[in-house]
Amino acid sequence: MSSHRLTESELIARFFAPLAGEGALGLKDDAASFSPEPGHDLVLTTDALVESVHFLPEDSPASIARKALGVNVSDLAAKGAEPAGFLLSLALPEGWTEEWLAQFAEGLGEASRDFVCPLLGGDTVKAMGALTLSVTAIGQVPMGRIVRRTNAEIGDVICVSGTIGDAALGLRLRKDPAWSESLSREAKAHLADRYLHPQPRHRLARIVRDHAHAAMDVSDGLAGDLAKMMRVSGVSADIEAESVPLSPAAREAIKADPSLFDLALTGGDDYEILCTVPEKKLDSFLKEADSVGVMMSAIGRVVQGRETPVFRMKNSERRYNAGSFSHF
Amino acid sequence: MSSHRLTESELIARFFAPLAGEGALGLKDDAASFSPEPGHDLVLTTDALVESVHFLPEDSPASIARKALGVNVSDLAAKGAEPAGFLLSLALPEGWTEEWLAQFAEGLGEASRDFVCPLLGGDTVKAMGALTLSVTAIGQVPMGRIVRRTNAEIGDVICVSGTIGDAALGLRLRKDPAWSESLSREAKAHLADRYLHPQPRHRLARIVRDHAHAAMDVSDGLAGDLAKMMRVSGVSADIEAESVPLSPAAREAIKADPSLFDLALTGGDDYEILCTVPEKKLDSFLKEADSVGVMMSAIGRVVQGRETPVFRMKNSERRYNAGSFSHF
Repeated sequence: MSSHRLTESELIARFFAPLAGEGALGLKDDAASFSPEPGHDLVLTTDALVESVHFLPEDSPASIARKALGVNVSDLAAKGAEPAGFLLSLALPEGWTEEWLAQFAEGLGEASRDFVCPLLGGDTVKAMGALTLSVTAIGQVPMGRIVRRTNAEIGDVICVSGTIGDAALGLRLRKDPAWSESLSREAKAHLADRYLHPQPRHRLARIVRDHAHAAMDVSDGLAGDLAKMMRVSGVSADIEAESVPLSPAAREAIKADPSLFDLALTGGDDYEILCTVPEKKLDSFLKEADSVGVMMSAIGRVVQGRETPVFRMKNSERRYNAGSFSHF
Repeated sequence: MSSHRLTESELIARFFAPLAGEGALGLKDDAASFSPEPGHDLVLTTDALVESVHFLPEDSPASIARKALGVNVSDLAAKGAEPAGFLLSLALPEGWTEEWLAQFAEGLGEASRDFVCPLLGGDTVKAMGALTLSVTAIGQVPMGRIVRRTNAEIGDVICVSGTIGDAALGLRLRKDPAWSESLSREAKAHLADRYLHPQPRHRLARIVRDHAHAAMDVSDGLAGDLAKMMRVSGVSADIEAESVPLSPAAREAIKADPSLFDLALTGGDDYEILCTVPEKKLDSFLKEADSVGVMMSAIGRVVQGRETPVFRMKNSERRYNAGSFSHF
């Protein structure tokens, strides 16, 4: 059956209506209805993904769906907001198939359940070019409790979740497989997976908002994003490079080629939480993050000044210019 | 200066930050904050626009911006919701210029003020193909007061705002200028403008929610959209074709070629409000719409049955199959 005999209504009913949250009116209306919890602010974010820019053409439909939702949920978590739902704009290129769409919807549904973020609405249109997706995610925080980028304070401890650099190394691996000959199979699989499947830290939302002065998600590289957060807070940062958390796979890659450490610090797509926490709340912060299964590492301090953050190594120090990484 | 030397941050600061609403955190953060009015539900909608599908490559950047926001605000109005803000995803093709973007942002700002719908956030990425925009608009209604598509009741009067068919005739005019030789210059200008610049009926939001049982915006053609609304309400409709409001320009075109009446009824892009109103509220509804400067016409009745709505003409009746128009 030719995919082009499916009308937009049929496509929605078949693939997306099963994912619809309570306020979505079964995706049969022009718009969704959403009742915010009393005493809460909403947090709103939107991120677009374009084939060959934010993912690779050969990526599975389920992976693309998970990434599109995940990168948005990551933004919410960094603001201390629990996910409440999302809307999806999907521009499908010529030649899409029902099988592709079925797998995409299945992956989206799975991600939606994992991140506790139901589908509220969307729009499906014809792309003139590559597959292009845009997700708008809505989160909730108790009133006035959104965690901003701009409030880092001198003396705060700088913390980051998970491990850094895996996704950038994973992308490098895919673009240049020869480069990775020396890596173990496990390391390759780990890095490739981290590029494909960001793990938004939605479980940290409440913990971030109870402890952090400032937070953002690391999407454009730790060094560049840290520089941005310090700049808008009017401060600088002093980082122990050795404290930056690396996965065993990233360590293996960097051991084989030490120059890759710069890529790990400046490459994009980590989708980890970077935040600054007052010293007196640090123990409680690390403990609570651990209790929801997220490793959180203290990597340095917020310091006075306007300089680009410094990363101190054993025998040297490095400063990375801002804008070291950008999809645009 | 080459446009490609602008980073995404600079682009946001220069063109979009001036449009940012209160909760947008100056577009300097990962996400916007929005405080819903107590006792209100949110209404959420998203619509994507793709060059050569939803607008023409030669359309002015300001027109494209106004249309992208307008079609979303139109959805909100049909649900009885006042606009509260919007997020924009913009996928810019190779070769965009700062001048294009400046004009786009200016048009967007003007539309945003006209529709009382501030910019809350966005994302700008590289398109792999044509210009692609996605807007998510957020509106508010008093709790439980969203107006659905599904609640049309037998005996309701079917009403439609403004005039029908202008945009479809305007598009036809642009695609086939020879066709319009017999039209006056004024008629041509009116029809072309209606395709370019939909006028969302945000001023009707409260009035629709105070009077209508069911409502939707007419984006895919009056006949098809009416059929959808009747189907999901489990009813049918009986329309006096002569009561369908036509502009003088549309009348002129249809007089020259009577077959264009079908195009007026089935063509897309009207962005008018179609709703069903109980008889006893009709006078008040028409009067209040008039008081905010919107013409509202009663065109028929909701009737029992499951048939496709009938349009009664002087000597015939017509039923239009659903899906008569679709961008997809």
